[in-house]
Amino acid sequence: MRKIEIAQEVSVAPQTYWSRKAQALTPYVAGEQPKEHMIKLNTNENAYPPSPAVSEAVAEIAHYLRKYPAPDALPLREAVAEAFGVRSSQVFCGNGSDEVLAMCFLAFFAGMEEPVRTADITYSFYPVWADLFDATLERIPLLADYTVNIPAMCGAAGVILANPNAPTAIALSLEEVEQIVRETKGVCVIDEAYWGFGAQSAVELVEKYPNLVVVHTLSKSHSLAGLRVGFAIAQENMIGALETVKDSFNSYPVDMLAQAGACAAIEDTAYFEETSAKICAIRDWTAHELREMGYRVLPSAANFIFVQCANAAETYAALREKKILVRYFGDDPRTQDFLRVTIGNKEEMTAFLEAMEELKEDV
Amino acid sequence: MRKIEIAQEVSVAPQTYWSRKAQALTPYVAGEQPKEHMIKLNTNENAYPPSPAVSEAVAEIAHYLRKYPAPDALPLREAVAEAFGVRSSQVFCGNGSDEVLAMCFLAFFAGMEEPVRTADITYSFYPVWADLFDATLERIPLLADYTVNIPAMCGAAGVILANPNAPTAIALSLEEVEQIVRETKGVCVIDEAYWGFGAQSAVELVEKYPNLVVVHTLSKSHSLAGLRVGFAIAQENMIGALETVKDSFNSYPVDMLAQAGACAAIEDTAYFEETSAKICAIRDWTAHELREMGYRVLPSAANFIFVQCANAAETYAALREKKILVRYFGDDPRTQDFLRVTIGNKEEMTAFLEAMEELKEDV
Repeated sequence: MRKIEIAQEVSVAPQTYWSRKAQALTPYVAGEQPKEHMIKLNTNENAYPPSPAVSEAVAEIAHYLRKYPAPDALPLREAVAEAFGVRSSQVFCGNGSDEVLAMCFLAFFAGMEEPVRTADITYSFYPVWADLFDATLERIPLLADYTVNIPAMCGAAGVILANPNAPTAIALSLEEVEQIVRETKGVCVIDEAYWGFGAQSAVELVEKYPNLVVVHTLSKSHSLAGLRVGFAIAQENMIGALETVKDSFNSYPVDMLAQAGACAAIEDTAYFEETSAKICAIRDWTAHELREMGYRVLPSAANFIFVQCANAAETYAALREKKILVRYFGDDPRTQDFLRVTIGNKEEMTAFLEAMEELKEDV
Repeated sequence: MRKIEIAQEVSVAPQTYWSRKAQALTPYVAGEQPKEHMIKLNTNENAYPPSPAVSEAVAEIAHYLRKYPAPDALPLREAVAEAFGVRSSQVFCGNGSDEVLAMCFLAFFAGMEEPVRTADITYSFYPVWADLFDATLERIPLLADYTVNIPAMCGAAGVILANPNAPTAIALSLEEVEQIVRETKGVCVIDEAYWGFGAQSAVELVEKYPNLVVVHTLSKSHSLAGLRVGFAIAQENMIGALETVKDSFNSYPVDMLAQAGACAAIEDTAYFEETSAKICAIRDWTAHELREMGYRVLPSAANFIFVQCANAAETYAALREKKILVRYFGDDPRTQDFLRVTIGNKEEMTAFLEAMEELKEDV
C-alpha cells in the first residue's frame, strides 16, 4: 500500500475522545529495555535460558497455529496442578502474572468500599490496578528492617502481598503468611512472582483457606519472561470468579506456543532445580562479597538483591557508564539509598562486583 | 509435591468473595473446540497453516525467552505500519483483537452516558465488554436483507461495527463506512477481524478522521488464531489512549514468540495473498453450489458463509453426526434459520456440500 508520508494534522486537542477512566489513569512504568548491549541486571529476568525442551515444544506446535488455543488452557493447568500437588480445577492461567493479578483485582476487589491492604514499598503495579478497577489501597509501612508489619496487615477486608517482597527481596515464613490469610476478612492474594529461589510457597494453604489466592509466574523461576505465562492457585470458587472475569475480557489469553512452552518448562523439573540452585549460589556469593566491601544487602529469597549505598543515584549512573544496568527507584526517602540488582550469571556478577569495589569509596 | 487427593470441602457459598462486578458479569461463550477429530467449520479459523516463516521465526527466538519482550512491540508495529502504509506510531498491538477491542471499550467508551451504537446481529462479545466497562450499547436492527442500517447508525456518541459483519459475512463499502465515521460524534471503532477476504479496509480513512479506530487480527487472514495477535490503527492521540489503558493493565501483552511469528507472517505477503485467494475461490464455489441446491447464502466478504436452512437446528445436529462441526446460534428469531460455516479446504467443503445435498430435502 501507499506509504503516507505527510505529517499528521493535529486536528484535536490532547486526550480528545479518551474515556474519563483513560484520562484519569497513571500507567505503570516497566523497567528499561536498553537498545545497546549491556550487563542487564535491572528487570529480574533469569540469568539462564529456558529449558531446551521449550524450543522443541514451540517449534513442533507452530504448524498448528491456524487453530485457536485451548481457551481453558487445560493441558497447562494439568501441568501446573501436577507440579504443585493441586487439582487442575484449582488453577487459572493468564498472559503473565500481571494479567492474572489484574484479573484478581477485577474478580475480588473491584468497587470494594473498604481498602485492600498492601505494603508501602512493594510492586508498583498494585496501585495502578486499584485505580483501574475502582478499589482503594491502604499502604502499610514496612518496619525499619524492611520487613512486613504483620499485625498491621491483619484484619483487612482484602490483602495483596508480594512474597518475597519486591524490591526488598525479603520473604515471610509460611507461618507469617498463614497468620495474615487467617486474619483477613475478605480475599488475600499472595503474589509469589519470585518463588523458586528459596521462599516457602503458600500453595499448601489453599486447601485450608477459601479466601486465599496464590499467584505465580514462569518469568523468573522458569526463565520465561518473554513467554508471558502466569497462574493462580486457589479453591474452585475463587477460580470460578477468575474464569468469569477472564471470559468477559479475552477468551484466549494464553496463546498456543506459550501453552506448549510453559508445559515443557514446568515438566523439566531437573532443569529448573539446576538453574535455581545456580542462581541462589551466585546470589549468596554476591551478597557476601558486597557485605565484605561494607555494603548493606537485605536478606534475599529472590533472584535479585536490594543493596544500600550512600550515593545510590550516582552509583546507578556510574554502573550505567560501565554498561551495567541495575534498577534505581528515584527519590522516595524509603528507597533512595538502594539499588535493586538482578542476579546475572557468574561472569556478569563478577563484573558487577568489580565495579562496586571501585565505587565503594562512596559507600 | 504431594498430590492432594481429598475432595474439596465446600466451605463457602457460591460466589463468596467475588466482587460485585464479577457477580454481575455474563461472560462471552467462545465456539466449541471439540476433543474428537471433526471437520471443524465452526470458529472461522483459516483453512491453511500459517506461513512456514512463522515456524522458523519462533524456533529461532525461543532461546531468548528469558528476557522480557519489547513492551511497545515496536518491530511488530513497524511490520504492520509497512504493510498498511501508516506510521508505527499509529499502530497499537495486543493479545488478539479481542484484547484490543476490550482496550478500545476501556479507552473510549468506559463510563459513557450516551449509548454506543452497534448492530443487533453482530459479534456477541460487544455487549459483554460494554457491561464490563460500564458502557451502554444501542443495538440497531439489521435491515431485512441483513445489511447494516446506515442512517440509523449515524449520529451516535460512539459506534462499534464489525466489517465484514459476523455472522452475516456481509461487508459495507468504504463509502458507507466513511459516512458512519463522519457522522459519529465520538469514537467509531471498525472491527475488521475478517479483513483479507475481499472487504475494503477503512485504514485509508485514518489520516482523515481523528475519531476512527480500525481493529485487525492475524487470526483469520494470516492463519494465526493460535498466536493471539491483533492490532489497532488510528491517529496518534487515539493510540495514546490505548497505550495508557494497556500500561495500566498489562505491560507486555504480546509475548516474544507471538511478536516474532506475527512479523514473519505479515512480511510473507505472497503467502497471505495465495491462501486468501484460495479461500475466496473455495468460498465462492461453495456458495454457488449451495445456491444451486436451493439454499440461501448471504453475500460473503469473509472466510465464512451464513446459510439459511428451514431446519437449521436439525441440520446442525445432522452435520455433527457426520463429524462436520458448524456454528448454530440458537433460537434468536433473526438467526435461528441460519448456520455459520467456516470455509475449510477443498476436501472439507466437498464433504460439507455432499452432506448438505443429502439434507436438502428439509430446506
